[in-house]
Amino acid sequence: MRDGLAHQLVVGLDADDTLWDNESAFAITEAKFRDLAEPWIDGAAADRALLEVERANIERYGYGVKSFVLSMIESITAISNGEVTVTQLNEIIDWGKDLLGMAPVLLDDVQSTVEDLVATHRVLIITKGDLHHQLARLRASGLDTTVDDVEVVAEKDPATYAAVLTRHGIAAQDFVMVGNSMKSDVLPVLELGAAAIHIPFHVTWALEVHDEPVDHPRLVTADTFAEVPALIRQLESNQ
Amino acid sequence: MRDGLAHQLVVGLDADDTLWDNESAFAITEAKFRDLAEPWIDGAAADRALLEVERANIERYGYGVKSFVLSMIESITAISNGEVTVTQLNEIIDWGKDLLGMAPVLLDDVQSTVEDLVATHRVLIITKGDLHHQLARLRASGLDTTVDDVEVVAEKDPATYAAVLTRHGIAAQDFVMVGNSMKSDVLPVLELGAAAIHIPFHVTWALEVHDEPVDHPRLVTADTFAEVPALIRQLESNQ
Repeated sequence: MRDGLAHQLVVGLDADDTLWDNESAFAITEAKFRDLAEPWIDGAAADRALLEVERANIERYGYGVKSFVLSMIESITAISNGEVTVTQLNEIIDWGKDLLGMAPVLLDDVQSTVEDLVATHRVLIITKGDLHHQLARLRASGLDTTVDDVEVVAEKDPATYAAVLTRHGIAAQDFVMVGNSMKSDVLPVLELGAAAIHIPFHVTWALEVHDEPVDHPRLVTADTFAEVPALIRQLESNQ
Repeated sequence: MRDGLAHQLVVGLDADDTLWDNESAFAITEAKFRDLAEPWIDGAAADRALLEVERANIERYGYGVKSFVLSMIESITAISNGEVTVTQLNEIIDWGKDLLGMAPVLLDDVQSTVEDLVATHRVLIITKGDLHHQLARLRASGLDTTVDDVEVVAEKDPATYAAVLTRHGIAAQDFVMVGNSMKSDVLPVLELGAAAIHIPFHVTWALEVHDEPVDHPRLVTADTFAEVPALIRQLESNQ
Protein backbone atom coordinates (compact mmCIF):
# COMPACT_ATOMS: atom_id res chain seq x y z
CA MET A 1 0.00 0.00 0.00
CA ARG A 2 1.27 3.47 -0.84
CA ASP A 3 -0.49 6.66 0.23
CA GLY A 4 -3.44 4.49 1.20
CA LEU A 5 -3.82 3.30 -2.41
CA ALA A 6 -2.94 -0.14 -3.71
CA HIS A 7 0.26 0.05 -5.75
CA GLN A 8 -0.75 -0.14 -9.42
CA LEU A 9 1.54 -2.31 -11.55
CA VAL A 10 2.19 -2.01 -15.28
CA VAL A 11 1.78 -5.46 -16.85
CA GLY A 12 4.13 -7.00 -19.44
CA LEU A 13 2.86 -10.07 -21.29
CA ASP A 14 5.05 -12.54 -23.14
CA ALA A 15 3.43 -13.88 -26.34
CA ASP A 16 4.82 -17.27 -27.47
CA ASP A 17 3.40 -20.04 -25.23
CA THR A 18 1.87 -17.43 -22.91
CA LEU A 19 -0.79 -15.83 -25.15
CA TRP A 20 -0.71 -18.35 -27.97
CA ASP A 21 0.67 -21.78 -28.66
CA ASN A 22 4.08 -21.72 -30.34
CA GLU A 23 6.30 -24.51 -29.10
CA SER A 24 3.93 -27.38 -29.89
CA ALA A 25 3.92 -26.41 -33.58
CA PHE A 26 7.73 -26.38 -33.47
CA ALA A 27 7.64 -29.75 -31.68
CA ILE A 28 5.49 -31.24 -34.46
CA THR A 29 8.04 -29.99 -36.99
CA GLU A 30 10.87 -31.47 -34.94
CA ALA A 31 9.03 -34.81 -35.10
CA LYS A 32 8.96 -34.51 -38.91
CA PHE A 33 12.68 -33.78 -38.79
CA ARG A 34 13.29 -36.96 -36.75
CA ASP A 35 11.33 -38.94 -39.35
CA LEU A 36 13.39 -37.38 -42.13
CA ALA A 37 16.62 -38.27 -40.30
CA GLU A 38 15.48 -41.82 -39.50
CA PRO A 39 17.42 -43.54 -42.33
CA TRP A 40 20.67 -42.22 -40.81
CA ILE A 41 20.25 -41.73 -37.04
CA ASP A 42 17.71 -42.34 -34.31
CA GLY A 43 15.32 -39.69 -33.03
CA ALA A 44 17.24 -38.69 -29.91
CA ALA A 45 20.44 -38.26 -31.91
CA ALA A 46 18.55 -36.20 -34.53
CA ASP A 47 17.21 -33.92 -31.78
CA ARG A 48 20.70 -33.46 -30.38
CA ALA A 49 22.27 -32.79 -33.78
CA LEU A 50 19.63 -30.20 -34.69
CA LEU A 51 19.88 -28.48 -31.33
CA GLU A 52 23.65 -28.28 -31.68
CA VAL A 53 23.32 -26.55 -35.07
CA GLU A 54 20.64 -24.19 -33.71
CA ARG A 55 22.84 -23.30 -30.78
CA ALA A 56 25.81 -22.63 -33.07
CA ASN A 57 23.68 -20.43 -35.34
CA ILE A 58 21.72 -18.45 -32.74
CA GLU A 59 24.15 -15.55 -32.54
CA ARG A 60 24.22 -15.17 -36.32
CA TYR A 61 20.56 -15.95 -37.06
CA GLY A 62 18.59 -14.94 -33.98
CA TYR A 63 15.26 -16.61 -33.11
CA GLY A 64 12.33 -17.60 -35.26
CA VAL A 65 11.05 -19.88 -37.99
CA LYS A 66 13.45 -18.82 -40.76
CA SER A 67 16.44 -19.51 -38.49
CA PHE A 68 14.91 -22.88 -37.56
CA VAL A 69 14.47 -23.82 -41.24
CA LEU A 70 18.05 -22.87 -42.15
CA SER A 71 19.38 -24.88 -39.20
CA MET A 72 17.28 -27.91 -40.16
CA ILE A 73 18.66 -27.83 -43.72
CA GLU A 74 22.23 -27.53 -42.46
CA SER A 75 21.71 -30.25 -39.88
CA ILE A 76 20.07 -32.86 -42.11
CA THR A 77 22.79 -32.31 -44.72
CA ALA A 78 25.41 -33.19 -42.12
CA ILE A 79 23.38 -36.05 -40.59
CA SER A 80 22.87 -37.65 -44.02
CA ASN A 81 26.41 -37.00 -45.24
CA GLY A 82 24.82 -35.15 -48.12
CA GLU A 83 22.52 -38.05 -49.03
CA VAL A 84 19.37 -36.04 -48.28
CA THR A 85 17.68 -34.97 -51.52
CA VAL A 86 17.01 -31.51 -52.92
CA THR A 87 13.32 -32.37 -52.77
CA GLN A 88 13.59 -33.13 -49.07
CA LEU A 89 15.40 -29.85 -48.38
CA ASN A 90 12.60 -28.00 -50.15
CA GLU A 91 10.07 -29.88 -48.02
CA ILE A 92 11.79 -28.39 -44.98
CA ILE A 93 11.26 -24.95 -46.50
CA ASP A 94 7.57 -25.81 -46.87
CA TRP A 95 7.41 -26.83 -43.18
CA GLY A 96 8.66 -23.34 -42.39
CA LYS A 97 6.07 -21.72 -44.63
CA ASP A 98 3.39 -23.74 -42.88
CA LEU A 99 4.62 -22.56 -39.48
CA LEU A 100 4.67 -18.93 -40.66
CA GLY A 101 1.22 -19.25 -42.16
CA MET A 102 -0.49 -20.74 -39.11
CA ALA A 103 -3.04 -18.45 -37.51
CA PRO A 104 -2.14 -17.85 -33.87
CA VAL A 105 -4.23 -20.05 -31.56
CA LEU A 106 -4.85 -18.16 -28.33
CA LEU A 107 -4.53 -20.23 -25.17
CA ASP A 108 -7.54 -20.75 -22.89
CA ASP A 109 -9.09 -17.60 -21.40
CA VAL A 110 -6.43 -15.33 -22.93
CA GLN A 111 -8.81 -13.13 -24.93
CA SER A 112 -11.18 -12.37 -22.05
CA THR A 113 -8.43 -12.09 -19.45
CA VAL A 114 -6.43 -9.60 -21.53
CA GLU A 115 -9.60 -7.56 -22.03
CA ASP A 116 -10.16 -7.55 -18.26
CA LEU A 117 -6.54 -6.55 -17.64
CA VAL A 118 -6.52 -3.57 -20.02
CA ALA A 119 -9.68 -2.24 -18.33
CA THR A 120 -7.75 -1.75 -15.09
CA HIS A 121 -4.04 -1.74 -15.98
CA ARG A 122 -1.56 -0.48 -18.51
CA VAL A 123 -0.54 -3.58 -20.52
CA LEU A 124 2.38 -4.11 -22.91
CA ILE A 125 3.11 -7.24 -24.92
CA ILE A 126 6.86 -7.91 -24.91
CA THR A 127 7.82 -10.71 -27.25
CA LYS A 128 11.13 -12.05 -28.52
CA GLY A 129 11.88 -13.27 -32.00
CA ASP A 130 11.37 -12.49 -35.63
CA LEU A 131 9.93 -8.97 -35.98
CA HIS A 132 7.93 -9.64 -39.14
CA HIS A 133 6.39 -12.92 -37.91
CA GLN A 134 5.60 -11.66 -34.40
CA LEU A 135 3.90 -8.51 -35.73
CA ALA A 136 1.92 -10.63 -38.21
CA ARG A 137 0.68 -12.87 -35.40
CA LEU A 138 -0.13 -9.92 -33.16
CA ARG A 139 -2.18 -8.38 -35.97
CA ALA A 140 -3.91 -11.68 -36.74
CA SER A 141 -4.79 -12.16 -33.06
CA GLY A 142 -6.12 -8.61 -32.71
CA LEU A 143 -4.22 -8.35 -29.43
CA ASP A 144 -1.90 -5.64 -30.85
CA THR A 145 -4.73 -3.12 -30.64
CA THR A 146 -6.23 -4.53 -27.42
CA VAL A 147 -3.15 -3.74 -25.35
CA ASP A 148 -1.49 -0.35 -24.84
CA ASP A 149 1.74 -1.11 -26.69
CA VAL A 150 3.80 -3.87 -28.23
CA GLU A 151 7.57 -4.43 -28.15
CA VAL A 152 9.29 -7.08 -30.29
CA VAL A 153 12.81 -7.54 -28.95
CA ALA A 154 15.76 -9.57 -30.24
CA GLU A 155 16.73 -10.91 -26.81
CA LYS A 156 15.10 -10.98 -23.38
CA ASP A 157 17.94 -10.06 -21.08
CA PRO A 158 18.07 -7.51 -18.25
CA ALA A 159 19.56 -4.81 -20.53
CA THR A 160 16.75 -5.18 -23.06
CA TYR A 161 14.03 -5.10 -20.38
CA ALA A 162 15.70 -2.05 -18.80
CA ALA A 163 15.67 -0.27 -22.17
CA VAL A 164 11.99 -1.12 -22.72
CA LEU A 165 11.02 0.12 -19.24
CA THR A 166 12.99 3.37 -19.73
CA ARG A 167 11.45 3.91 -23.14
CA HIS A 168 7.96 3.59 -21.66
CA GLY A 169 8.74 5.58 -18.51
CA ILE A 170 8.11 2.62 -16.16
CA ALA A 171 10.06 2.10 -12.92
CA ALA A 172 11.10 -1.54 -12.39
CA GLN A 173 9.30 -1.74 -9.02
CA ASP A 174 6.07 -0.76 -10.82
CA PHE A 175 6.34 -3.59 -13.37
CA VAL A 176 5.27 -7.22 -13.48
CA MET A 177 6.16 -9.56 -16.35
CA VAL A 178 3.91 -12.54 -17.16
CA GLY A 179 5.31 -15.45 -19.16
CA ASN A 180 6.12 -19.11 -19.54
CA SER A 181 9.90 -18.88 -19.70
CA MET A 182 11.85 -18.76 -16.46
CA LYS A 183 14.94 -17.78 -18.45
CA SER A 184 13.37 -15.05 -20.62
CA ASP A 185 10.33 -13.75 -18.73
CA VAL A 186 11.13 -14.23 -15.04
CA LEU A 187 14.82 -14.13 -14.11
CA PRO A 188 15.81 -10.96 -16.06
CA VAL A 189 12.96 -8.86 -14.63
CA LEU A 190 13.53 -10.11 -11.05
CA GLU A 191 17.14 -9.00 -11.50
CA LEU A 192 15.93 -5.49 -12.32
CA GLY A 193 13.69 -5.32 -9.24
CA ALA A 194 10.39 -6.00 -11.01
CA ALA A 195 7.90 -8.77 -10.19
CA ALA A 196 7.05 -11.82 -12.30
CA ILE A 197 4.21 -14.28 -12.80
CA HIS A 198 5.40 -17.59 -14.20
CA ILE A 199 2.91 -19.74 -16.13
CA PRO A 200 4.70 -22.96 -17.09
CA PHE A 201 3.80 -24.32 -20.54
CA HIS A 202 3.70 -28.04 -21.24
CA VAL A 203 6.61 -27.89 -23.71
CA THR A 204 9.74 -25.77 -23.44
CA TRP A 205 12.34 -25.36 -26.18
CA ALA A 206 15.63 -26.89 -25.07
CA LEU A 207 17.42 -23.53 -25.38
CA GLU A 208 14.87 -21.98 -22.97
CA VAL A 209 14.99 -24.71 -20.32
CA HIS A 210 15.89 -23.58 -16.82
CA ASP A 211 16.04 -26.56 -14.49
CA GLU A 212 16.76 -25.04 -11.09
CA PRO A 213 13.71 -24.09 -9.03
CA VAL A 214 13.45 -20.39 -8.20
CA ASP A 215 12.10 -19.06 -4.93
CA HIS A 216 11.78 -15.30 -4.84
CA PRO A 217 9.50 -12.90 -2.93
CA ARG A 218 8.46 -11.09 -6.13
CA LEU A 219 7.72 -14.29 -8.10
CA VAL A 220 4.39 -16.08 -8.14
CA THR A 221 3.36 -19.07 -10.24
CA ALA A 222 0.07 -19.55 -12.07
CA ASP A 223 -1.40 -22.73 -13.51
CA THR A 224 -3.41 -20.86 -16.14
CA PHE A 225 -3.58 -17.40 -17.69
CA ALA A 226 -7.02 -16.84 -16.11
CA GLU A 227 -5.35 -16.60 -12.69
CA VAL A 228 -3.22 -13.62 -13.71
CA PRO A 229 -5.50 -10.72 -12.63
CA ALA A 230 -5.91 -12.13 -9.10
CA LEU A 231 -2.16 -12.71 -8.82
CA ILE A 232 -1.48 -9.14 -9.93
CA ARG A 233 -3.82 -7.86 -7.19
CA GLN A 234 -1.98 -10.08 -4.72
CA LEU A 235 1.41 -8.66 -5.81
CA GLU A 236 0.01 -5.13 -5.62
CA SER A 237 -1.33 -5.58 -2.09
CA ASN A 238 2.00 -7.06 -0.93
CA GLN A 239 3.97 -4.02 -1.96
CA MET B 1 10.84 30.71 -38.29
CA ARG B 2 8.68 30.31 -35.21
CA ASP B 3 8.76 32.72 -32.27
CA GLY B 4 11.86 34.25 -33.83
CA LEU B 5 13.74 30.93 -33.52
CA ALA B 6 14.65 28.63 -36.36
CA HIS B 7 12.33 25.61 -36.31
CA GLN B 8 14.31 22.68 -34.87
CA LEU B 9 13.71 19.38 -36.66
CA VAL B 10 14.04 15.87 -35.22
CA VAL B 11 16.16 13.80 -37.63
CA GLY B 12 15.38 10.22 -38.70
CA LEU B 13 18.19 8.31 -40.42
CA ASP B 14 17.70 5.21 -42.54
CA ALA B 15 20.52 2.66 -42.12
CA ASP B 16 20.89 0.29 -45.13
CA ASP B 17 22.58 2.16 -48.01
CA THR B 18 22.30 5.43 -46.11
CA LEU B 19 24.66 4.86 -43.15
CA TRP B 20 26.32 1.69 -44.40
CA ASP B 21 26.59 -0.30 -47.58
CA ASN B 22 24.03 -3.06 -47.86
CA GLU B 23 22.79 -3.49 -51.39
CA SER B 24 26.17 -3.99 -53.04
CA ALA B 25 26.82 -7.05 -50.82
CA PHE B 26 23.42 -8.40 -51.88
CA ALA B 27 24.30 -7.58 -55.50
CA ILE B 28 27.51 -9.61 -55.25
CA THR B 29 25.49 -12.54 -53.91
CA GLU B 30 22.99 -12.14 -56.74
CA ALA B 31 25.91 -12.41 -59.16
CA LYS B 32 26.91 -15.69 -57.50
CA PHE B 33 23.32 -16.83 -57.91
CA ARG B 34 23.43 -16.01 -61.64
CA ASP B 35 26.63 -18.07 -61.94
CA LEU B 36 24.98 -20.96 -60.11
CA ALA B 37 21.95 -20.78 -62.43
CA GLU B 38 24.08 -20.49 -65.57
CA PRO B 39 23.82 -24.19 -66.62
CA TRP B 40 20.03 -23.73 -66.88
CA ILE B 41 19.18 -20.12 -67.69
CA ASP B 42 20.90 -16.86 -68.54
CA GLY B 43 21.66 -14.15 -65.99
CA ALA B 44 18.74 -11.86 -66.75
CA ALA B 45 16.30 -14.76 -66.50
CA ALA B 46 17.88 -15.87 -63.21
CA ASP B 47 17.45 -12.34 -61.80
CA ARG B 48 13.82 -12.31 -62.86
CA ALA B 49 13.12 -15.77 -61.46
CA LEU B 50 14.69 -14.95 -58.10
CA LEU B 51 12.90 -11.62 -57.85
CA GLU B 52 9.60 -13.33 -58.57
CA VAL B 53 10.16 -15.80 -55.70
CA GLU B 54 11.26 -12.99 -53.37
CA ARG B 55 8.17 -10.99 -54.24
CA ALA B 56 5.91 -14.01 -53.62
CA ASN B 57 7.58 -14.67 -50.25
CA ILE B 58 7.84 -11.13 -48.88
CA GLU B 59 4.53 -11.18 -47.05
CA ARG B 60 5.36 -14.48 -45.35
CA TYR B 61 9.09 -13.93 -44.79
CA GLY B 62 9.59 -10.18 -44.46
CA TYR B 63 12.94 -8.55 -45.36
CA GLY B 64 16.50 -9.59 -44.66
CA VAL B 65 19.24 -12.09 -45.36
CA LYS B 66 17.47 -15.22 -44.07
CA SER B 67 14.48 -14.51 -46.31
CA PHE B 68 16.85 -13.92 -49.24
CA VAL B 69 18.61 -17.26 -48.63
CA LEU B 70 15.34 -19.21 -48.43
CA SER B 71 14.12 -17.57 -51.64
CA MET B 72 17.40 -18.36 -53.44
CA ILE B 73 17.12 -22.05 -52.45
CA GLU B 74 13.51 -22.22 -53.62
CA SER B 75 14.30 -20.37 -56.83
CA ILE B 76 17.35 -22.38 -57.90
CA THR B 77 15.46 -25.62 -57.21
CA ALA B 78 12.77 -24.52 -59.64
CA ILE B 79 15.23 -23.08 -62.19
CA SER B 80 17.22 -26.33 -62.25
CA ASN B 81 14.17 -28.61 -62.20
CA GLY B 82 15.66 -30.11 -59.05
CA GLU B 83 19.06 -30.77 -60.69
CA VAL B 84 20.86 -28.39 -58.32
CA THR B 85 22.83 -30.38 -55.73
CA VAL B 86 22.49 -30.50 -51.95
CA THR B 87 26.05 -29.18 -51.75
CA GLN B 88 25.09 -26.17 -53.86
CA LEU B 89 22.05 -25.46 -51.69
CA ASN B 90 24.30 -25.51 -48.64
CA GLU B 91 26.67 -23.09 -50.38
CA ILE B 92 23.75 -20.68 -50.62
CA ILE B 93 23.32 -20.99 -46.86
CA ASP B 94 27.01 -20.13 -46.49
CA TRP B 95 26.54 -17.03 -48.67
CA GLY B 96 23.88 -15.95 -46.20
CA LYS B 97 26.15 -16.56 -43.23
CA ASP B 98 28.81 -14.47 -44.95
CA LEU B 99 26.34 -11.62 -45.45
CA LEU B 100 25.24 -11.81 -41.81
CA GLY B 101 28.83 -11.90 -40.59
CA MET B 102 30.07 -8.89 -42.56
CA ALA B 103 31.03 -5.94 -40.39
CA PRO B 104 29.00 -2.89 -41.42
CA VAL B 105 31.05 -0.59 -43.66
CA LEU B 106 30.00 2.99 -42.99
CA LEU B 107 29.66 5.17 -46.06
CA ASP B 108 31.88 8.23 -46.52
CA ASP B 109 31.65 10.90 -43.82
CA VAL B 110 28.84 9.09 -41.96
CA GLN B 111 30.66 8.75 -38.64
CA SER B 112 31.67 12.42 -38.34
CA THR B 113 28.42 13.76 -39.80
CA VAL B 114 26.26 11.74 -37.37
CA GLU B 115 28.43 12.99 -34.50
CA ASP B 116 27.90 16.58 -35.70
CA LEU B 117 24.15 16.00 -36.04
CA VAL B 118 23.64 14.59 -32.53
CA ALA B 119 25.45 17.62 -31.08
CA THR B 120 22.69 19.91 -32.35
CA HIS B 121 19.65 17.70 -33.03
CA ARG B 122 17.66 14.80 -31.65
CA VAL B 123 18.50 11.88 -33.97
CA LEU B 124 16.77 8.49 -34.39
CA ILE B 125 17.87 5.66 -36.65
CA ILE B 126 14.81 4.07 -38.27
CA THR B 127 15.67 0.94 -40.20
CA LYS B 128 13.61 -1.77 -41.82
CA GLY B 129 14.33 -5.46 -41.85
CA ASP B 130 15.49 -8.32 -39.70
CA LEU B 131 15.53 -7.22 -36.04
CA HIS B 132 18.42 -9.43 -34.95
CA HIS B 133 20.68 -8.55 -37.89
CA GLN B 134 19.95 -4.83 -37.83
CA LEU B 135 20.61 -4.59 -34.09
CA ALA B 136 23.85 -6.56 -34.53
CA ARG B 137 25.03 -4.13 -37.21
CA LEU B 138 24.00 -1.11 -35.17
CA ARG B 139 25.99 -2.44 -32.21
CA ALA B 140 28.99 -3.29 -34.41
CA SER B 141 28.95 0.20 -35.92
CA GLY B 142 28.66 1.89 -32.53
CA LEU B 143 26.00 4.16 -34.00
CA ASP B 144 23.31 2.68 -31.71
CA THR B 145 24.79 4.56 -28.76
CA THR B 146 25.77 7.66 -30.78
CA VAL B 147 22.18 8.53 -31.66
CA ASP B 148 19.29 9.17 -29.28
CA ASP B 149 17.23 6.11 -30.17
CA VAL B 150 16.87 3.26 -32.64
CA GLU B 151 13.74 1.77 -34.19
CA VAL B 152 13.82 -1.43 -36.26
CA VAL B 153 10.52 -1.69 -38.11
CA ALA B 154 9.04 -4.46 -40.24
CA GLU B 155 7.76 -2.11 -42.94
CA LYS B 156 8.30 1.55 -43.82
CA ASP B 157 4.81 2.74 -44.61
CA PRO B 158 2.95 5.85 -43.39
CA ALA B 159 1.22 3.91 -40.57
CA THR B 160 4.53 2.64 -39.22
CA TYR B 161 6.17 6.07 -39.37
CA ALA B 162 3.11 7.59 -37.68
CA ALA B 163 3.37 5.03 -34.86
CA VAL B 164 7.10 5.74 -34.42
CA LEU B 165 6.52 9.51 -34.30
CA THR B 166 3.69 9.10 -31.77
CA ARG B 167 5.76 6.79 -29.62
CA HIS B 168 8.56 9.37 -29.50
CA GLY B 169 6.25 12.36 -29.09
CA ILE B 170 7.30 13.96 -32.39
CA ALA B 171 4.89 15.99 -34.55
CA ALA B 172 5.21 15.17 -38.26
CA GLN B 173 5.96 18.81 -39.17
CA ASP B 174 8.94 18.68 -36.78
CA PHE B 175 10.47 15.62 -38.45
CA VAL B 176 12.83 15.05 -41.36
CA MET B 177 13.72 11.57 -42.64
CA VAL B 178 17.06 10.99 -44.39
CA GLY B 179 17.48 7.96 -46.65
CA ASN B 180 18.27 6.41 -50.00
CA SER B 181 14.88 4.90 -50.77
CA MET B 182 12.23 7.07 -52.37
CA LYS B 183 9.67 4.36 -51.62
CA SER B 184 10.61 3.68 -47.98
CA ASP B 185 12.28 6.84 -46.66
CA VAL B 186 10.76 9.70 -48.64
CA LEU B 187 7.19 9.15 -49.88
CA PRO B 188 5.65 7.82 -46.64
CA VAL B 189 6.98 10.70 -44.51
CA LEU B 190 5.97 13.36 -47.06
CA GLU B 191 2.48 11.87 -46.91
CA LEU B 192 2.45 12.44 -43.14
CA GLY B 193 3.51 16.08 -43.49
CA ALA B 194 7.17 15.58 -42.56
CA ALA B 195 10.20 16.59 -44.64
CA ALA B 196 12.70 14.29 -46.36
CA ILE B 197 16.27 14.33 -47.59
CA HIS B 198 16.86 11.81 -50.36
CA ILE B 199 20.41 10.52 -50.91
CA PRO B 200 20.31 8.20 -53.92
CA PHE B 201 22.57 5.13 -53.64
CA HIS B 202 24.26 3.63 -56.68
CA VAL B 203 22.30 0.37 -56.47
CA THR B 204 18.65 -0.07 -55.54
CA TRP B 205 16.95 -3.39 -54.88
CA ALA B 206 14.32 -4.03 -57.55
CA LEU B 207 11.55 -4.17 -54.93
CA GLU B 208 12.56 -0.67 -53.74
CA VAL B 209 12.77 0.99 -57.14
CA HIS B 210 10.59 4.04 -57.64
CA ASP B 211 10.92 5.32 -61.17
CA GLU B 212 8.79 8.44 -61.24
CA PRO B 213 10.55 11.68 -60.33
CA VAL B 214 9.16 13.41 -57.24
CA ASP B 215 8.96 17.17 -56.85
CA HIS B 216 7.80 18.27 -53.44
CA PRO B 217 8.36 21.44 -51.38
CA ARG B 218 9.47 19.46 -48.32
CA LEU B 219 11.88 17.18 -50.26
CA VAL B 220 15.52 17.98 -50.95
CA THR B 221 18.14 15.77 -52.56
CA ALA B 222 21.73 15.26 -51.43
CA ASP B 223 24.64 13.77 -53.34
CA THR B 224 26.42 12.64 -50.18
CA PHE B 225 25.68 12.17 -46.48
CA ALA B 226 28.06 15.03 -45.62
CA GLU B 227 25.56 17.50 -47.10
CA VAL B 228 22.83 16.51 -44.66
CA PRO B 229 23.44 19.05 -41.85
CA ALA B 230 23.38 22.02 -44.27
CA LEU B 231 20.20 20.70 -45.91
CA ILE B 232 18.54 20.31 -42.52
CA ARG B 233 19.37 23.97 -41.73
CA GLN B 234 17.91 24.91 -45.10
CA LEU B 235 14.68 23.01 -44.37
CA GLU B 236 14.52 24.57 -40.90
CA SER B 237 14.89 28.10 -42.21
CA ASN B 238 12.20 27.50 -44.86
CA GLN B 239 9.56 26.57 -42.32
